[in-house]
Amino acid sequence: MSTTLTGIAASAGIAIAKAFRYEEPDLTVEKKSGVNVEQEIADFDAALATSKDELKVIKEKTRQDMGDDHAEIFEAHLLVLSDPELVDAIRTKIKDEDVNASFALKEISDQFISMFESMDNEYMKERAADIRDVSKRVLAHILGQDIVSLAEINEEVVIVGEDLTPSDTAQLNKEFVLGFATNIGGRTSHSAIMARSLEIPAVVGTKTVTHDTAKDVMVIVDGLDGKVIIDPTDAELSEYRQKADDFEAQKREWAKLVNEPTVSTDGHKVELAANIGTPNDLEGVKNNGAEAVGLYRTEFLYMGRDELPTEEEQFTAYKKVVADMDGKPVVIRTLDIGGDKELPYLDLPEEMNPFLGFRAIRLCLEMDDMFRVQLRALLRASAFGNLKIMFPMIATLTEFREAKAILEEEKQKLVKDGVDVSDKIEVGIMVEIPSTAVMAKQFAKEVDFFSIGTNDLIQYTFAADRMNERVSYLYQPYSPAILNLVKIIIDASHAEGKWTGMCGEMAGDSIAIPLLLGLGLDEFSMSATSVLPARSQISKLSQSEAAEVAEKALTLQTAEEVQELVESTFMK
Amino acid sequence: MSTTLTGIAASAGIAIAKAFRYEEPDLTVEKKSGVNVEQEIADFDAALATSKDELKVIKEKTRQDMGDDHAEIFEAHLLVLSDPELVDAIRTKIKDEDVNASFALKEISDQFISMFESMDNEYMKERAADIRDVSKRVLAHILGQDIVSLAEINEEVVIVGEDLTPSDTAQLNKEFVLGFATNIGGRTSHSAIMARSLEIPAVVGTKTVTHDTAKDVMVIVDGLDGKVIIDPTDAELSEYRQKADDFEAQKREWAKLVNEPTVSTDGHKVELAANIGTPNDLEGVKNNGAEAVGLYRTEFLYMGRDELPTEEEQFTAYKKVVADMDGKPVVIRTLDIGGDKELPYLDLPEEMNPFLGFRAIRLCLEMDDMFRVQLRALLRASAFGNLKIMFPMIATLTEFREAKAILEEEKQKLVKDGVDVSDKIEVGIMVEIPSTAVMAKQFAKEVDFFSIGTNDLIQYTFAADRMNERVSYLYQPYSPAILNLVKIIIDASHAEGKWTGMCGEMAGDSIAIPLLLGLGLDEFSMSATSVLPARSQISKLSQSEAAEVAEKALTLQTAEEVQELVESTFMK
Repeated sequence: MSTTLTGIAASAGIAIAKAFRYEEPDLTVEKKSGVNVEQEIADFDAALATSKDELKVIKEKTRQDMGDDHAEIFEAHLLVLSDPELVDAIRTKIKDEDVNASFALKEISDQFISMFESMDNEYMKERAADIRDVSKRVLAHILGQDIVSLAEINEEVVIVGEDLTPSDTAQLNKEFVLGFATNIGGRTSHSAIMARSLEIPAVVGTKTVTHDTAKDVMVIVDGLDGKVIIDPTDAELSEYRQKADDFEAQKREWAKLVNEPTVSTDGHKVELAANIGTPNDLEGVKNNGAEAVGLYRTEFLYMGRDELPTEEEQFTAYKKVVADMDGKPVVIRTLDIGGDKELPYLDLPEEMNPFLGFRAIRLCLEMDDMFRVQLRALLRASAFGNLKIMFPMIATLTEFREAKAILEEEKQKLVKDGVDVSDKIEVGIMVEIPSTAVMAKQFAKEVDFFSIGTNDLIQYTFAADRMNERVSYLYQPYSPAILNLVKIIIDASHAEGKWTGMCGEMAGDSIAIPLLLGLGLDEFSMSATSVLPARSQISKLSQSEAAEVAEKALTLQTAEEVQELVESTFMK
Repeated sequence: MSTTLTGIAASAGIAIAKAFRYEEPDLTVEKKSGVNVEQEIADFDAALATSKDELKVIKEKTRQDMGDDHAEIFEAHLLVLSDPELVDAIRTKIKDEDVNASFALKEISDQFISMFESMDNEYMKERAADIRDVSKRVLAHILGQDIVSLAEINEEVVIVGEDLTPSDTAQLNKEFVLGFATNIGGRTSHSAIMARSLEIPAVVGTKTVTHDTAKDVMVIVDGLDGKVIIDPTDAELSEYRQKADDFEAQKREWAKLVNEPTVSTDGHKVELAANIGTPNDLEGVKNNGAEAVGLYRTEFLYMGRDELPTEEEQFTAYKKVVADMDGKPVVIRTLDIGGDKELPYLDLPEEMNPFLGFRAIRLCLEMDDMFRVQLRALLRASAFGNLKIMFPMIATLTEFREAKAILEEEKQKLVKDGVDVSDKIEVGIMVEIPSTAVMAKQFAKEVDFFSIGTNDLIQYTFAADRMNERVSYLYQPYSPAILNLVKIIIDASHAEGKWTGMCGEMAGDSIAIPLLLGLGLDEFSMSATSVLPARSQISKLSQSEAAEVAEKALTLQTAEEVQELVESTFMK
């Protein structure tokens, strides 16, 4: 008998393969005294050398497969293993106290970890995490335990684990890892986002998949419907092989749409754009036929470093994206840090409720030296294509006016210095705070466009932290409350001849798409890999029918009722 | 030359008196070895005895002036001083290490404090705060430093300090403390709320009042306009004496309204209600002529104890309030904990963003055993007067339906057991989450009433923690965004023949009152001391003129424009 688990469909597709159980090895350590000191030191040195060799391989592989950004974490791990303060302290402990290598390693690394963790500085706390990772690796070698390296998987598998961390997903090899299923996580958790970006089928949040899956048993990951089938029957295997084939056929259909416009059956045209984090993401944007970049998140330029990026560094990145898109629109969002995204070198005070705190535009308006550097880089890049500037977390018209005034000042300075700046830059805002949605009429007179940031808008509208599992039932994109706010925003922009986009997860969601089309959304910005399915879906919808359904959805009572309405109308 | 500081008007009235600078004494400790051990122990014991005597006096005084609740903190302080583990450890340290009493006390109490603080349990962390307070007192006596006891002030003063803590305000004697001014705090900070409840004029958030005020200099606290005048000129003194007299005259005028209804010049009637925390607050409700209790916060029944209150304890409290109000409406809110209000004995997990977390109705629906006990107590109390039940933090209709179903179940059980339960209990909700405001039309078909909780509604609508100073500029009750939400809620309730109240700070605010009257708010619930000024203000307003102004305010761009509109129309 097979077992079927229901989880969250995190990345589309069907994977069928043997389970690879990804577990922490048993690294329990016992203290032994009166040991052969020279032997223990030799064991430690050997484990150290093996670990370094492994890390060099992993790092190089990551660099080739995923780029420099992802490889950096392993460089940090290698630095830890070359730190004489740590390594010599371990050797000294073995010698002075006559103890075994594994015990000395554990004691000393724990001391370093707790020292770094106790520091009131995020950068140092990250060092603690590096030491923890890397000392586990060395310890496993001393103890003769297998270290499970996802990078070394060399046969087709489906990974089954509690959760996958950034350093786990960085090692995945698409050739052999056909999919994964985890106990925890949601559609917007790190592992889910990585799965979509790698185009690996994934189901997260199954709660019990590690418990229910024996080693090497066959597993089906259904990333289309959020199911995991453990030890499938022959009937299930053939059913899902058919489903996989159908999905591949569908993907081939989608691929034909790559250079097509996005038009409904009754001739209503919308723009499908992609969200990106770095210039490297442009390849996916083009391969998937996105008509624009709807959200370029500039935070990555500021992260994983010790100081602010210079104007020149930023200019280079922005120019590359704008020029590569060759006249197509590129909406660049100014710095959105704070909340769950920290920049250690800014050394901001801890907050009781960071999601309701001093972040994004709030912080940029106060730290305007930093803000002006970014704005100058953006203004300079505007000469090379169709660049639009978007301010995040705008809650009042006063904030927008202040941000725009600073932008104008920098523009005048550049023009006076004879620098080329486009005179057609649209300046818009993210609508992700309820106050701004409610006041969209007033905003529409002053901004050039809106882009609805649904991830935050939903979280604030329901007053529920979207990272907090205990209130995750309140993350309700289909709620009539959200749809009514979306309608207010779109109607307000159209009344002033402006346009509205959406750049949250909702824009690529197949239940939401008919509703958004019906409400008149002009631009849908999503993960690049969602663009073709969305184009295919819209090409089969009638905008006027979608408008009728959306009008009805606005008056329903619950998100569940809205979902049923869409499914019964469009997905029979 | 006098100095004038501007702060936040926290409590109405004018106070003119000598400054009493409330500062922490210098409690620096030096280690001395080779001391006369017996003398040091004797010094310690004497300081201990003096401290206990002081605390007993303070506790008894607090009990008489402010009730058992406020006196409890000093009982906890006395327990610390009787704890042999702490006291003996100090004596032993003096003896064994030959050190001075002040050093031993400081070392040992710091050890206890950090031990309690490191525990992952709010109750233990509060113990750490108790030990810190009380060891300061003993240390001050050993060092011969004056401990400033606010309870012992025996001449007329205005207190000037950084901030006042709960244990500070618990000691204030209204006879001598005519007012206070602090560096930090806002209108909803603890010290501000206490000042209004004690009816002492106060200005908070002046930033520099402690720096600018010399000892014993004359100070004027203008709690009407949020000003502090230090070392006033003769002209200023007579100006403010006149202002104080005018305010007293105004209060006498207000007092005449105590038994009057609340009616505008054009005959529109509204209900003015009071917010209460315990049955003890009923005296203020009656003295100030409130027509109802618009919000009875039941959290206090659950706080400052080691376990949940029983059904009987709750029934007694609810019955007392309902019966004492003698048929007038009493709106009782079910348990609203979580966020900034914790119950240590529930041992809830820490959250990254507690204001967006597992709190109030979210928690009650999951911990429904606890919820049912409260509902049964409420149902039983309903037989003794006009009780209405209100659920906090409702974000979806599904939550309301679940809460109401549980209430119905408990009602049926009681009726079956022959217990008297009113069959006219209105069941309503707080509207404090944007989703609920936006969906008010849908909610209005199912609830009996709305009460708008503006403190939270403003915080979520602007996505800004109202306790975080760095984003406090986003606490904007007069924003057109808030007014538009209020209008949606009121209009939705009236369309279904239901009523809407408001129980946040905004309901008693003189700028907001004309707008709320204009929007058609039915019930205004506020601090008891605000009721008569509000009644007086409304009795001079025309509802139809207020409606025109409110209609205009909805279309303005910023909170500042709204405030100017109200001031220029009604406060010329």
